[in-house]
Amino acid sequence: MLKETIALYSPKVEEALERFLRKELAQARELSRFHEEYYANLKEYLLRGGKRLRPIALVMAYRGVGGSDEQASIDASICVELLHNSSLIHDDIIDRDELRRGGPTFHAKYRDWHRAVKASGDSEHFGLSLGILGGDILFNLGFKALAYARFDEKLLVKALKLYVEAYQQLIDGVLLDTYLPLSEQVEEKEYLEMVRLKTAALFEKAILIGATLGGATDSQLKALSSYAVLSAQGFQIQDDIIGLFGEEEEIGKPVGSDIREGKMTLLVIKALELADETNRNRLRKLLGKADLTREEVEEARNIVESTGALSYARQLAQDLVKLAKEKLREAEPSLTKHSMAFFEELADFFIERTF
Amino acid sequence: MLKETIALYSPKVEEALERFLRKELAQARELSRFHEEYYANLKEYLLRGGKRLRPIALVMAYRGVGGSDEQASIDASICVELLHNSSLIHDDIIDRDELRRGGPTFHAKYRDWHRAVKASGDSEHFGLSLGILGGDILFNLGFKALAYARFDEKLLVKALKLYVEAYQQLIDGVLLDTYLPLSEQVEEKEYLEMVRLKTAALFEKAILIGATLGGATDSQLKALSSYAVLSAQGFQIQDDIIGLFGEEEEIGKPVGSDIREGKMTLLVIKALELADETNRNRLRKLLGKADLTREEVEEARNIVESTGALSYARQLAQDLVKLAKEKLREAEPSLTKHSMAFFEELADFFIERTF
Repeated sequence: MLKETIALYSPKVEEALERFLRKELAQARELSRFHEEYYANLKEYLLRGGKRLRPIALVMAYRGVGGSDEQASIDASICVELLHNSSLIHDDIIDRDELRRGGPTFHAKYRDWHRAVKASGDSEHFGLSLGILGGDILFNLGFKALAYARFDEKLLVKALKLYVEAYQQLIDGVLLDTYLPLSEQVEEKEYLEMVRLKTAALFEKAILIGATLGGATDSQLKALSSYAVLSAQGFQIQDDIIGLFGEEEEIGKPVGSDIREGKMTLLVIKALELADETNRNRLRKLLGKADLTREEVEEARNIVESTGALSYARQLAQDLVKLAKEKLREAEPSLTKHSMAFFEELADFFIERTF
Repeated sequence: MLKETIALYSPKVEEALERFLRKELAQARELSRFHEEYYANLKEYLLRGGKRLRPIALVMAYRGVGGSDEQASIDASICVELLHNSSLIHDDIIDRDELRRGGPTFHAKYRDWHRAVKASGDSEHFGLSLGILGGDILFNLGFKALAYARFDEKLLVKALKLYVEAYQQLIDGVLLDTYLPLSEQVEEKEYLEMVRLKTAALFEKAILIGATLGGATDSQLKALSSYAVLSAQGFQIQDDIIGLFGEEEEIGKPVGSDIREGKMTLLVIKALELADETNRNRLRKLLGKADLTREEVEEARNIVESTGALSYARQLAQDLVKLAKEKLREAEPSLTKHSMAFFEELADFFIERTF
């Protein structure tokens, strides 16, 4: 059901996104050649790919609670994709990333353009400036997509408030992520809270926006909210595991990046907690080491595995997903069969995937 | 009427802003010590001052078309102040400014904090990162303030669409401002278009949000829109004049900054157009010269004055404000007397001020 649903809705979301951006591009063309090029670059960035899981989850929540205007929900659903890409552009500046979905990150693209045309001034700063503005524009366009969707205004205002909340939690999560590496010791609880904000919030709010527009009951909203947060926490733990134990070709980035960047993943938190002093000190040394070698990544893996941190993380991810599915079944009235199957399989996929 | 109105509403806006931020701060406190400090810094930044002209204009437009729930309009009005400050934080990063309203800019504050506590990593980048997030948060909070104001949802959705439009135009304006210095020759038309987007849009949308929430007629909206754009263009021209011919103590930044930064102000555009070849080449040399001396500023002034660019700009600003006031009087039904007097005096103030 998961595969079929993605195959069905992914092109529809893509089409809605493309149509929306085409209109924006036409307006930009009226302003100047530079605006036209700028919005074309934003469009290219957005259409580079991605499975569009968040918009599809929004539509499935809408359908799951009995919403009937499918096209309106698809048109609204692109808001979360715009928000997601907005935060990617700003995150890539903050994390100094160069690559995104097989192309340059947005700020890197403009930096390189500035260099290529040998414009006066600082290319790095030019790229950064246009990256800040690009993220700003996409977040705002997400609002626009939602505000112009054809729903009753009472529902729209509720949905827009959820969009606001999604972004606030997301940024609060990024702040926490920036702050955690500065603190002496990080606990599992803080990690799960960070994930709830940084990773889960947008997935949760996508689902809640869909359900709200579809006229969900409070019980349905509550069940979907718990489902989303718990399964997204499972998703993130699996992400941490793949990042350290996955295959480089599959994950598309160097194995061990999290260790190199000093990220406080659950694996690291748990390994630091369970390790003896020698291993703990060794792992601390490896954390944030910019020139981490392949052997040192292997060493970090061994510590994480031998301390039992890996199996602990695997178990926790499974428990979270199991609980997520239980919460989902508490919705009254129940979601439609199709939606229920979709969300259950999605949660299973979150922790079974290897990429 | 202008002074009295500002004296009356400025503290009310301040109070609403303070109350709103206090609530956000209380929520941040639940998250972590770092979040608490971060939101406290945002609050301090916002409460550093400013005349709150945009929120007051919003309230006066609301009252001017017969809106009766004054407190609700004041609560809504802080949205434009939040948006304005959001864009200041991002602009200050882009313009590499260090000072804002007698304190450090937001990114500079965090950069200096990072340095002071000797945290690991790049202080410059840390400040930049937290500055990007700060601007993101404030824009989002502006949307929140408006979405939660107590108005009918039909009106709210209209107002929220105007908020979205304000931000999009503002960024389109910043993009144009970034782009103009790269182009060979800039015309008055392009300058006025840039000002319409970068300076006028937020003032215009503040007024339109107020009028919309107050139940304005189409004629009133049209009159207020024209008034706002024209008078804000007058404002910006006066700003350019003060920036080159004003007193350093009054304007709070070095005289001639625009020349030093290579900004395409109306004075520069017009002087380049009217000057003989010698003066034109000389002015081009001075534009964007980072180490511009006091004598060179004086030289630029002389070129701008002797070519007649200064008197041209003064006249254009006056014409724009005159037309703005005429447009205002076309509203049907007329605005209330109090509002009319406020907006007329405000437009006069825009071009009479010397700071």
